[in-house]
Amino acid sequence: MEQVKVLLEEREIPRQWYNILADMPTPMNPPLHPGTGQPVGPGDLAPIFPMNLIEQEVTTERWIDIPEEVLEKYLLWRPTPLYRARNFEKLLDAPVRIYYKNEGVSPPGSHKPNTAVAQAYYNKVFGIKRLSTETGAGQWGSALSMACRMFGLECRVFMVKVSYEQKPYRRLMMMTWGADCIPSPSDRTEMGRKILAERPDSPGSLGIAISEAIEDVVGDETARYSLGSVLNHVLLHQTIIGLEAQKQLEKIGEYPDVVMGCAGGGSNFSGLSFPFVRDKIHGKDISVVAVEPTSCPTLTRGPFAYDFGDTARTTPLLAMYTLGHDFVPAPIHAGGLRYHGMAPIVSHLVKEQIIEARAFDQIEAFEAGVKWARTEGFISAPETNHAIAAVVQEAERAKEEGKERVILFNWSGHGLVDLSAYDAYLSGKLTQFELPEEEIQRALKSIDGLPKP
Amino acid sequence: MEQVKVLLEEREIPRQWYNILADMPTPMNPPLHPGTGQPVGPGDLAPIFPMNLIEQEVTTERWIDIPEEVLEKYLLWRPTPLYRARNFEKLLDAPVRIYYKNEGVSPPGSHKPNTAVAQAYYNKVFGIKRLSTETGAGQWGSALSMACRMFGLECRVFMVKVSYEQKPYRRLMMMTWGADCIPSPSDRTEMGRKILAERPDSPGSLGIAISEAIEDVVGDETARYSLGSVLNHVLLHQTIIGLEAQKQLEKIGEYPDVVMGCAGGGSNFSGLSFPFVRDKIHGKDISVVAVEPTSCPTLTRGPFAYDFGDTARTTPLLAMYTLGHDFVPAPIHAGGLRYHGMAPIVSHLVKEQIIEARAFDQIEAFEAGVKWARTEGFISAPETNHAIAAVVQEAERAKEEGKERVILFNWSGHGLVDLSAYDAYLSGKLTQFELPEEEIQRALKSIDGLPKP
Repeated sequence: MEQVKVLLEEREIPRQWYNILADMPTPMNPPLHPGTGQPVGPGDLAPIFPMNLIEQEVTTERWIDIPEEVLEKYLLWRPTPLYRARNFEKLLDAPVRIYYKNEGVSPPGSHKPNTAVAQAYYNKVFGIKRLSTETGAGQWGSALSMACRMFGLECRVFMVKVSYEQKPYRRLMMMTWGADCIPSPSDRTEMGRKILAERPDSPGSLGIAISEAIEDVVGDETARYSLGSVLNHVLLHQTIIGLEAQKQLEKIGEYPDVVMGCAGGGSNFSGLSFPFVRDKIHGKDISVVAVEPTSCPTLTRGPFAYDFGDTARTTPLLAMYTLGHDFVPAPIHAGGLRYHGMAPIVSHLVKEQIIEARAFDQIEAFEAGVKWARTEGFISAPETNHAIAAVVQEAERAKEEGKERVILFNWSGHGLVDLSAYDAYLSGKLTQFELPEEEIQRALKSIDGLPKP
Repeated sequence: MEQVKVLLEEREIPRQWYNILADMPTPMNPPLHPGTGQPVGPGDLAPIFPMNLIEQEVTTERWIDIPEEVLEKYLLWRPTPLYRARNFEKLLDAPVRIYYKNEGVSPPGSHKPNTAVAQAYYNKVFGIKRLSTETGAGQWGSALSMACRMFGLECRVFMVKVSYEQKPYRRLMMMTWGADCIPSPSDRTEMGRKILAERPDSPGSLGIAISEAIEDVVGDETARYSLGSVLNHVLLHQTIIGLEAQKQLEKIGEYPDVVMGCAGGGSNFSGLSFPFVRDKIHGKDISVVAVEPTSCPTLTRGPFAYDFGDTARTTPLLAMYTLGHDFVPAPIHAGGLRYHGMAPIVSHLVKEQIIEARAFDQIEAFEAGVKWARTEGFISAPETNHAIAAVVQEAERAKEEGKERVILFNWSGHGLVDLSAYDAYLSGKLTQFELPEEEIQRALKSIDGLPKP
């Protein structure tokens, strides 16, 4: 009986998050105030985030203690198992050993609660009573709903209307956890009312939902906004994934040659990879690969530039790879990968050639995902299938080169409430996707005139 | 940081299933051939089941070795964690310690693969190429689809048509695992064609689907039928749950006063409880409680009688608690609990007063389930919510009596693809259910004239 899972006991759970800002080889471009063009200070963010999280956003301390109250909630599903994908390896018949972190064991089924629980806790400690956020497909909204309930906070989720109507299951999760889930655009905000007046049947967008969620808290001293990816403190909270993986691999005397994860805003990828990126910065010879969809190829086809985090141009300017905040990705099913930008830290590391990026088509992703389900059993989230496609490619390369490789990737979540995407694939309704260069150039016009990094 | 989960390493997984037939204090009534009224022999079952499983159905060996190939597949999600429900305990504020086995970590999200994997393996070894089965809500069909794929068997699932149409997610799971999922009644069988001729818009029933699945294999030497509950060998395979739980509780020096599980056909309940029932038979002072819905109160309101296992009167006669094979349960959302009978072993143990039974209304079940989701995080299957309602009642009793109790129950699966039931509850569409005695008496007419135990 060969070992499949490497477990950690609860007492072995990491007690600190890892902050990669402490190990950055070159300085990062600061976020800028869109009005003044000057670096934003903590005070600029105070109406939106609580000060304890703003401090985490900017600190360069290498290790941040995980509060006891957060650890207690983490234990409901953490440490997560590290798996060896032995059945998938057999299918690929390549000289690779494939390990993955199973983040699908959390209650909402993804990595998102790692930061949701932490953010709810810090807001609670800061005296906040209510959090507001936006959600597209609903992974983030459901995770924050659960986390808020655990710490006794109210939670309001502005969900892109078309998803609200087409993806009832995630909305129902939020309801079950007691959150207020509102289709966006809504009549709860000025921004929403304005859009509804212009176009009553607007399907909504992530950009609109972000604007509504921010407007919803600004001026309310007891409410704050919460974001599920992109920002430094969000990535920080996710590093527990990689820190656990390092302990688990050490137990079996392994170390990866390649570390992979799918990347939309960048949080699950960062969570697994940053502790390994640290080793790479300090001389370890490994590849670290961010995997994105060809329909939203931020890292592989966008420029490194200052851009807004949202479509409505309300956030500070972030230095990142971007397709322009006007970029509207095709409606592929991996909702979590449809973001025009990329986390500034991930972007910086790609620019410095410490991390590389690869893009995969949704057809390749689902092809890999169905093979995965039929060997490993677990049905992956559409986002996660992109990472699996990259694993397949890596295994094929190893086979061609006849060189052994140890691959580690983040199985960021299960796809049990995303099965309609599998239906589309299995019934031949998904098509290969080509994104014309002109379309990217058109969207990039939206960053004309913004400061340059 | 208080311990939440008790884990077992893979090497600690039990290597044998426990067969309670070895410890039965009184002899059981044998299954009877409906034509002759005589006990059925192995030969009678040979067209339907492979001989190695028929042997397991009748053996009285206490310990049955789990084949290496089955253990290998089990390791994809087993041993499952034993949880202490600390947050739920705090909410209940009663002198209880509540432990639960989390069977929701399997790929389809329930306990069903414990037997699906074993059955697929034994059929494979026996030279069978294809399995056929029926499914209602789809828990069983999805588990068998995955298991068949793992052992290279074809899988055909007759799914009750109304569920096929209303519950697309489980059907899509089956498709993703490569099974052929057919709405029943279908034109693939004589039985199906006959029903469609009489009533083209028939919504189907579990009884019809069973008949179609059996007809589909009889006469095909390379095909066999597979059942997801009720039978002895199915219950046997599930005992890995309770055997793991015993090891886990021993690690922390605990032993339960009360062992609980929801019971439809009886397999998840049996799986957790039988190793503890063994201790009880040998003198341990504990309560073992099977929890059923008030809408299908087999154990609490049915007689102990010989009855058919299916509506179409094609199976052997089983001695069990039954509401009569004509009983049509109300469409409550816990599809897995809507069975007119109960596993013969469970029935026998209830008759001998070794196991007791309690019934809960769906409103109580969802009330408990929502409290659970809002404290423990995990959203339970509607079936599982019935067990949680029983845990709440037990905690309240302990509080009234001022007596400490250790409660162990089976968290048989998650409810992420059953969220429409939560929607119905949260929006006030579920109602308290009364089942008139006349309705039971009417259904029981269907067993008039059958042999008596």
